[in-house]
Amino acid sequence: MNLPASIQPVIAGPEEFADALANQGVPSVRLAWQPPPETVSSAATRVLGDARRYAAMEAANTEAMTRITSARCVLVDLRMARDIVPELGDRMLLHAGPPLSWEAACGPMRGALAGAALYEGWARSLPEAETLLERGDIALSPCHEHDAVGPMAGVISPSMPVLVVENKTYGNRAFSTLNEGLGKVLRYGANDAGVIARLRWLRDEVAPTLTAAIRRADGLDLTSIIAQALHMGDELHNRNKAATALFTRAIAPSLAEGDIHRSPLGPRLVGAILRYLAETDVFFLNLAMAASKAALDPAADLPGSTIVTAMSRNGTEFGIRTSGTGDRWFTAPAPAIDGLYFPGYGPDDANPDLGDSAITETGGLGAFALAAAPAITQFIGGTPALARRYTDEMYGITYAEHPRYTIPALDFRGTPVGVDLLKVGMSRIAPVLDTGIAHKESGVGQIGAGIVRVPIEPFDQALMAVASS
Amino acid sequence: MNLPASIQPVIAGPEEFADALANQGVPSVRLAWQPPPETVSSAATRVLGDARRYAAMEAANTEAMTRITSARCVLVDLRMARDIVPELGDRMLLHAGPPLSWEAACGPMRGALAGAALYEGWARSLPEAETLLERGDIALSPCHEHDAVGPMAGVISPSMPVLVVENKTYGNRAFSTLNEGLGKVLRYGANDAGVIARLRWLRDEVAPTLTAAIRRADGLDLTSIIAQALHMGDELHNRNKAATALFTRAIAPSLAEGDIHRSPLGPRLVGAILRYLAETDVFFLNLAMAASKAALDPAADLPGSTIVTAMSRNGTEFGIRTSGTGDRWFTAPAPAIDGLYFPGYGPDDANPDLGDSAITETGGLGAFALAAAPAITQFIGGTPALARRYTDEMYGITYAEHPRYTIPALDFRGTPVGVDLLKVGMSRIAPVLDTGIAHKESGVGQIGAGIVRVPIEPFDQALMAVASS
Repeated sequence: MNLPASIQPVIAGPEEFADALANQGVPSVRLAWQPPPETVSSAATRVLGDARRYAAMEAANTEAMTRITSARCVLVDLRMARDIVPELGDRMLLHAGPPLSWEAACGPMRGALAGAALYEGWARSLPEAETLLERGDIALSPCHEHDAVGPMAGVISPSMPVLVVENKTYGNRAFSTLNEGLGKVLRYGANDAGVIARLRWLRDEVAPTLTAAIRRADGLDLTSIIAQALHMGDELHNRNKAATALFTRAIAPSLAEGDIHRSPLGPRLVGAILRYLAETDVFFLNLAMAASKAALDPAADLPGSTIVTAMSRNGTEFGIRTSGTGDRWFTAPAPAIDGLYFPGYGPDDANPDLGDSAITETGGLGAFALAAAPAITQFIGGTPALARRYTDEMYGITYAEHPRYTIPALDFRGTPVGVDLLKVGMSRIAPVLDTGIAHKESGVGQIGAGIVRVPIEPFDQALMAVASS
Repeated sequence: MNLPASIQPVIAGPEEFADALANQGVPSVRLAWQPPPETVSSAATRVLGDARRYAAMEAANTEAMTRITSARCVLVDLRMARDIVPELGDRMLLHAGPPLSWEAACGPMRGALAGAALYEGWARSLPEAETLLERGDIALSPCHEHDAVGPMAGVISPSMPVLVVENKTYGNRAFSTLNEGLGKVLRYGANDAGVIARLRWLRDEVAPTLTAAIRRADGLDLTSIIAQALHMGDELHNRNKAATALFTRAIAPSLAEGDIHRSPLGPRLVGAILRYLAETDVFFLNLAMAASKAALDPAADLPGSTIVTAMSRNGTEFGIRTSGTGDRWFTAPAPAIDGLYFPGYGPDDANPDLGDSAITETGGLGAFALAAAPAITQFIGGTPALARRYTDEMYGITYAEHPRYTIPALDFRGTPVGVDLLKVGMSRIAPVLDTGIAHKESGVGQIGAGIVRVPIEPFDQALMAVASS
């Protein structure tokens, strides 16, 4: 076996599994363990009991982890979505999570889709937009199937500006929208006139100037900003305060030096953009998501691998894709969230879990890096000790420790990265995610934030698919 | 007794001391303890054994801590030092630490003083500047005696721009220079043409534009930035990365919107200032120092109090001032530093400890807040566990926990603040400081960073002075 020195399997499976590793000279840590269902253990045994298959799996997993952790992701551009995803031209909207129909869509997803149709001018009112969507006159497709990711509803329409992130190590790209800020925003299903006006401001005023600044900055290193922010109390999902501040100070000189400044309204516009960045702690989330997707995608098609390459939710279903199973989605109903609610709201108002933002956990950030972000517990609940326990737990179901993403409080140990279907299956520990909480009804918005344990069934299904392939 | 709920004395003294507190219904924690010298214990007994004196001390200390921890410090202006400290007009230079003569000054202090004389145009060469200083043609006075603080050599000359920080709770002000960055800089004793040119750039190009932006921003809340930065891995002495980024994003809109932008060179100048802020992680140190001094000064003259209001070093001596002893300095030789050196340098090259920056520890930041900054150990040495132990130790010699400065990793416990002469004297635990390391020779600059344990004698002297007053 040819594992990087930092990779030490944590075995939460039957003794023969650990023994099989020991026979190959791989040190492992054994955890207390509850037995998996017979279907899962027999799938695991099929892989583990066959030396040739086992070796192929290890080789594929090692290759997947090398690809994922050697990514260097930089921000190269800001473009209109239609220029990046030509399919959008024919009245298509992208959305978060696995594939979804209008009929199956939850309240906040419907709100965001209808709002986007209004923003695009395809309809003149929300009821008209809903009619178009109901009739199927607007196509729906997952962001993940177009190199994109979007937080919460994750709706991307043709004339939304998207951040273009390039993985310089492998040459692939990923995209995400500009973050609208907190509160009443499209991604949480709000869609009133103020929400639409803000989207237009992002498109008409922010995008042209920010595009010029991003091009002038010539490749802002997002992987480096993420590594620094993990040393500054961010976990890059629900807390992006440090990363956004580092991004702001990195882009600010390019903003100030742009040609826009020579126009009469230039200084006021640059000031407004800098104020938007200063007031939007969550701005960097969309960059952390695109960088995570750009890092994970090169590992998306390695036959035999048991590494998860995407976790995502559309508000109705939670789904995953894995390295060994390519583009196929494995899904289960979206889970409920354990969190802190804004005043006046409670669990009865909450929509089930929603958004592509779980791509951060898939890449070793978010809840997997909670030990780096003790201050986040003031926002999502829990205690710093609990935050640390979540990270500790995720070491048990991941394949590697990230060589560049480290946690000072854990003596600079790398974050747990690379959810392994085998470890999830045998340990019966499902991943945890940080998340925002959307109101279950269309048009309301965010009502809280918290932690969610995703359903384990998709991991079991995927493991069985790998084992029988 | 009328102590805030957050204040719990930690007793590292003789049993009768703890018993005396217990008799008054004050809960206390008892530590392992080594006996103090007889002079110190008899001074302590004089205060503790007299119920009237003891009550007066407790009242004075409680008042001191209330004043220190209720400060709200904001940045209100950037002015030429001569406009703020008129005494400077007559060829005076301010310096870090307790009072100092040219004869007693160490290498880096001499380098900085001579460089400042050159910068002011009082001399045309460094030898000429040294002659003026040697002849006493240039007066020297501690920053601390003019409401100012300066890092390392801490030299302030009449035409240096100084940041003006106002404590809105008490109306007093404190001042500090603009930080020059790292490496070859005046404050570490470097004084070549590049160092002087950078000082001129700060004065002639940065200051006018930054002044306008600071006035436009109308009171940037430094206390709030410090509180946020403690949740982002800074301890505000050797690590100011988060605070500088938060400051940058707060001032950037005002910089961009200034009139300067309408001039032909405006965008380039604003861009250069934003780049300087982006590249100078240590920029906020000077603001943290001025904010700490502005917070501590209102507690500077409370008879009977045993709270330390300033700790500082001039490279030759370490000195303190206390609430109960007013303007008087208590000094001892400056200590050596335990730290990490830049390549090519070692302990033999190091100057003893230097700078007013220990005002941050005096105010509950710096090494006292090390537990908030585990990532700093990559810069100053040690481990995250050791960083935490330093903070734990400082709880044993301080009077309070800061209500606004909290440490997420310690379950949001307030930082230890208010060094208490009695606790230092009886526990024999002297404060620790984060610090930079200057080369011992004039003209070289910074060669490392580390941790220093200050000498205990000044605390003993001050305690005896309080006891005999």
